[in-house]
Amino acid sequence: MLIFLSTEATVAEQARILDFLKRFGVRGFSTRFGGRSVFVAAEGKPFCSPSDPVFQEVADMDGVDEVVPVSAPYPLCCLSLRPEGSVIKTLDFSVGNGTFGVIGGPCTVESESQTLETARCVKAAGATALRGGAFKPRTSPYAFQGLKEEGLRILAKARQETGLAVVTEAMSSAEALLIEEYADVVQIGTRNAQNYRLLETCGQLRKPVLLKRGFSCSLDEFLMSAEYILAGGNEQVILCERGIRTFETYSRYTLSVGAIPALKMLTHLPIVVDPSHAAGRIDLVAPLALASVAAGADGLLVEVHPDPKKALCDGRQSLAPEEFESMFKACLRVRAAIR
Amino acid sequence: MLIFLSTEATVAEQARILDFLKRFGVRGFSTRFGGRSVFVAAEGKPFCSPSDPVFQEVADMDGVDEVVPVSAPYPLCCLSLRPEGSVIKTLDFSVGNGTFGVIGGPCTVESESQTLETARCVKAAGATALRGGAFKPRTSPYAFQGLKEEGLRILAKARQETGLAVVTEAMSSAEALLIEEYADVVQIGTRNAQNYRLLETCGQLRKPVLLKRGFSCSLDEFLMSAEYILAGGNEQVILCERGIRTFETYSRYTLSVGAIPALKMLTHLPIVVDPSHAAGRIDLVAPLALASVAAGADGLLVEVHPDPKKALCDGRQSLAPEEFESMFKACLRVRAAIR
Amino acid sequence: MLIFLSTEATVAEQARILDFLKRFGVRGFSTRFGGRSVFVAAEGKPFCSPSDPVFQEVADMDGVDEVVPVSAPYPLCCLSLRPEGSVIKTLDFSVGNGTFGVIGGPCTVESESQTLETARCVKAAGATALRGGAFKPRTSPYAFQGLKEEGLRILAKARQETGLAVVTEAMSSAEALLIEEYADVVQIGTRNAQNYRLLETCGQLRKPVLLKRGFSCSLDEFLMSAEYILAGGNEQVILCERGIRTFETYSRYTLSVGAIPALKMLTHLPIVVDPSHAAGRIDLVAPLALASVAAGADGLLVEVHPDPKKALCDGRQSLAPEEFESMFKACLRVRAAIR
Amino acid sequence: MLIFLSTEATVAEQARILDFLKRFGVRGFSTRFGGRSVFVAAEGKPFCSPSDPVFQEVADMDGVDEVVPVSAPYPLCCLSLRPEGSVIKTLDFSVGNGTFGVIGGPCTVESESQTLETARCVKAAGATALRGGAFKPRTSPYAFQGLKEEGLRILAKARQETGLAVVTEAMSSAEALLIEEYADVVQIGTRNAQNYRLLETCGQLRKPVLLKRGFSCSLDEFLMSAEYILAGGNEQVILCERGIRTFETYSRYTLSVGAIPALKMLTHLPIVVDPSHAAGRIDLVAPLALASVAAGADGLLVEVHPDPKKALCDGRQSLAPEEFESMFKACLRVRAAIR
Repeated sequence: MLIFLSTEATVAEQARILDFLKRFGVRGFSTRFGGRSVFVAAEGKPFCSPSDPVFQEVADMDGVDEVVPVSAPYPLCCLSLRPEGSVIKTLDFSVGNGTFGVIGGPCTVESESQTLETARCVKAAGATALRGGAFKPRTSPYAFQGLKEEGLRILAKARQETGLAVVTEAMSSAEALLIEEYADVVQIGTRNAQNYRLLETCGQLRKPVLLKRGFSCSLDEFLMSAEYILAGGNEQVILCERGIRTFETYSRYTLSVGAIPALKMLTHLPIVVDPSHAAGRIDLVAPLALASVAAGADGLLVEVHPDPKKALCDGRQSLAPEEFESMFKACLRVRAAIR
Repeated sequence: MLIFLSTEATVAEQARILDFLKRFGVRGFSTRFGGRSVFVAAEGKPFCSPSDPVFQEVADMDGVDEVVPVSAPYPLCCLSLRPEGSVIKTLDFSVGNGTFGVIGGPCTVESESQTLETARCVKAAGATALRGGAFKPRTSPYAFQGLKEEGLRILAKARQETGLAVVTEAMSSAEALLIEEYADVVQIGTRNAQNYRLLETCGQLRKPVLLKRGFSCSLDEFLMSAEYILAGGNEQVILCERGIRTFETYSRYTLSVGAIPALKMLTHLPIVVDPSHAAGRIDLVAPLALASVAAGADGLLVEVHPDPKKALCDGRQSLAPEEFESMFKACLRVRAAIR
Repeated sequence: MLIFLSTEATVAEQARILDFLKRFGVRGFSTRFGGRSVFVAAEGKPFCSPSDPVFQEVADMDGVDEVVPVSAPYPLCCLSLRPEGSVIKTLDFSVGNGTFGVIGGPCTVESESQTLETARCVKAAGATALRGGAFKPRTSPYAFQGLKEEGLRILAKARQETGLAVVTEAMSSAEALLIEEYADVVQIGTRNAQNYRLLETCGQLRKPVLLKRGFSCSLDEFLMSAEYILAGGNEQVILCERGIRTFETYSRYTLSVGAIPALKMLTHLPIVVDPSHAAGRIDLVAPLALASVAAGADGLLVEVHPDPKKALCDGRQSLAPEEFESMFKACLRVRAAIR
Repeated sequence: MLIFLSTEATVAEQARILDFLKRFGVRGFSTRFGGRSVFVAAEGKPFCSPSDPVFQEVADMDGVDEVVPVSAPYPLCCLSLRPEGSVIKTLDFSVGNGTFGVIGGPCTVESESQTLETARCVKAAGATALRGGAFKPRTSPYAFQGLKEEGLRILAKARQETGLAVVTEAMSSAEALLIEEYADVVQIGTRNAQNYRLLETCGQLRKPVLLKRGFSCSLDEFLMSAEYILAGGNEQVILCERGIRTFETYSRYTLSVGAIPALKMLTHLPIVVDPSHAAGRIDLVAPLALASVAAGADGLLVEVHPDPKKALCDGRQSLAPEEFESMFKACLRVRAAIR
């Protein structure tokens, strides 16, 4: 269960609550959610039924504001905490609870001109956030690793000019803290989806985190990774489905489109989809984006490049600006159709 | 390459063509496609380039109408043969090349009343075909195996009353021939997707075949299975994506929504989706159906039961009639949105 | 539960037993196992606990020899029916319960000389059975489909000369019945692992059946397919693990070596392994064979070709005779090591 | 290609080599391997053929000791660099090139007594290294996260008493540096197999690294992760196959036993297997261990607990000491059998 404390709860009252729970072997974890202090009763008896006398007794203790009976292993992510869904908002970018957020941009920040040009295009098409890698997770140690801090500076310049929120990936705690200074959303990539130390750092950030699903993680594991961030006190988490690894070879990964509605039944966190990495080929990006929107996605993360054939990385999955714009419009029509 | 013969080609001319090809080690297969006789040059040198002198020489031979340079291992399925897409039509049911065909009905034909009731509901919602299993592929030898021929009679009665085309599954050649008598479309299930003897029988049928993708077959293998049917002379094949087996457990299978556009770039055959078996749970059926339509599906195959909780089989994935109707309407809106 | 009838059970006694069970909603299936008549109580209350009063009452009825409390969905396959393991024996080939059976031979019967030459080699190396495809399941309808009945005649001739038992694949009921005449073991391939009509025919055969695991079937599904054969009255089933489909690409399939001990804890049926199809490349065949033996396999099914480079099919996974012999000897040493 | 410099190569000579390569667009990376300085020509023309005139020209330049034509994307891991295989040795633990290293111990360091007791048991059975988690990667943020530095102190004490080399996991760069102080081998877990910043840190360590395969990584990705460590200058890498994620459910993961011989054909790095995490259940650990040894594994990493039922974590996959000893002996017999 989750025990929300009242704002006037005294230290003595809190101690009494914990002492009471300890009698039943309950161990837990204190954090904040929705602007309130909350105690996550994580181990020992869960007392998740409102009809349980202990549950009632806790609810009636001084200093307790509300007791919420969740039994999922990721209590702070649970839909029941916020049935209407969370909204994550930064600058003009907003995602969740009815708002639709589209993030576009190049795989990699290659230069100021390429980044600014792309930023203008994606903004013109209607996007409210710009993606672009400054620190690149490369399978090969010998491949181009990104422009690093210089890339962050370029992204910040693009935001200054366009007003787009900047989303960029961190691969370590140090990078996450640096990105927090320069950008608006810290992205955690699929290969770090279970890098728990990095997730703990994300829990300390004051900026939203876009958490990609590990390409072979179950939905439970995905939500548990998100729970690491919420448990640390940062509830601004955007989930991102980006394709799973299967036996199929026609696309780089298999987009698990059913994960979108399945997650929406489990969590209040908004869900965006990255059709570019799921597909790994341009001609499937738009159909996957449309399918994701039809299945209820709250937003999209799409690779756009002013000249895909010249991209340093992932060009074969990047849309040209006009393809992005046309896809965007079709997505809005589909979104209207499923209401 | 495919060598289409002119209608006036004589036996002697045909022999001369084959003799000529034999010189180059080309072995092949004669069949019919699009109302024309065609020779599939399947082994030996393919001569797939129109600029190849041998290709030209064949094209100029007496008795040859047209030579088509396809190199895919499934030449008769190739998109280039009919870029606008094939239409499969029977009674009021039509699928492909712009027409949208929806097949609804119970997993299993349980009784005349249940079948007729469901048939009326799916027709009222706008479906033009009725599904329902008379011969049931059951994992357990001890499970209910279907009403068999009695089930076929019930389905025929439902067609008589409603005008719906009847789609039902065959698990053996004998069943396929029997179903050809009673029903309008012969369905081949996922477990028989590579039952080549059964596919050969399907090639001899005068009725359309709905071929489900094997739950772990690649797209190439799927199209090769379809090619078995076309090579036998039956080009009325409807492909059906129904979910693949992956590590995921939130749904019974993982719908490979990207397979829809990927197949559309390879083949002229229409593609329908079975969201019911992909999901294995009611609450995901509609989102998967909408996603499939957004990705370009030509039709749907959906389990509907007048009283899902009382279904003998697969009740937990069958929609109630009103859910089916609401899903159907949303699909039409999505279809309009992606034009 | 399984109800074994005494040999003297009268028709009246049997009717009384069924009537009694019907009162509890038990439906079932009569067959034979281990030379005895058995009634499989498959639906309704299972009464699987020996302490259950109904269980006791049935055990005490006239005409009942023994009641066995199995609750698995594949009761006739259950290990508890024959804890020491079944032995399948034909000619000098014997597999299970401590005997180790090795089947070697070409992918395809290409000619009499190739088949006889291979037969002599595999016999010289110690094998007691010869494999070789007469009816070939080919992904492409245009690929060589095997010598068919002529191939069966060649295999029979090889048996006559060498005394090796002949194992060959059937893809349809008609082929299975024909193979029963010519060969010693009827093989069901991975693509027909859930071809239930074919499995039903196998239940009627008087010859052993080698059942390959569907390349994406769970162990439960695998055993349920075997149960189809046993339910039909043929208990001579050899299970064959042959690799599953995963995301891996270094080999054609991924050998699930753990399936061997896992199956041995569930069933009395012997388990052989096909390392050739699992690997799809020669250099992995011997290591996979050794690993399988170390994990407890009762036998092996290995592709051997007198001149692998000239094989019509699957040459790149066939061992040369001397490689087969060396692998065989190493397997026997490993088998001795794990006792 | 790899360009090994002679020990007397001057700075000027090195500059001349790089300048020469730059003319052909070759970019690269300088590191050390086998006690020698080496330049990895990673981008641009690879010049991998010894008959290439440029290759010859480089080989003849002053300061060049040897040029090795490797074209794999993981040149430093390539088998051709050290065909006999690398040996990783620390204290009495040795693995690779004919030596067989077994690491046993609890999932988690729970207490000094539990750790010391287990250490004595695994040593008595013949193991030369002790495993035990001090920093635990837990799917849930609320689960026990390990004793951390206190756990490292306990492990160090166990080494002092038994002489066993200590293997323990790091989840961040900071932990890796701390573990380098206390332990003998730094383990990188499956969830961090593509945590590139952590791999870079491992490249700086003076201690061996045991790198687990990501549970859905291809062999290429696995070797590329190892290459990150070698590129950083630490060539003491032990690869560990620990099961991949597939559709199977009978075990936690599917051990890819074929990966062992497949890797041995690609790399000189030793390969150990973790049957405990692959299986996730005690009864499969020994068969998987034996299969791995039969397939050519250089060592094993096995969970052992003095009282598995009381283990804080993963008890259901830990062997009791006597089971470990019996498995160890059987492994040695299998190892002798495959020579």
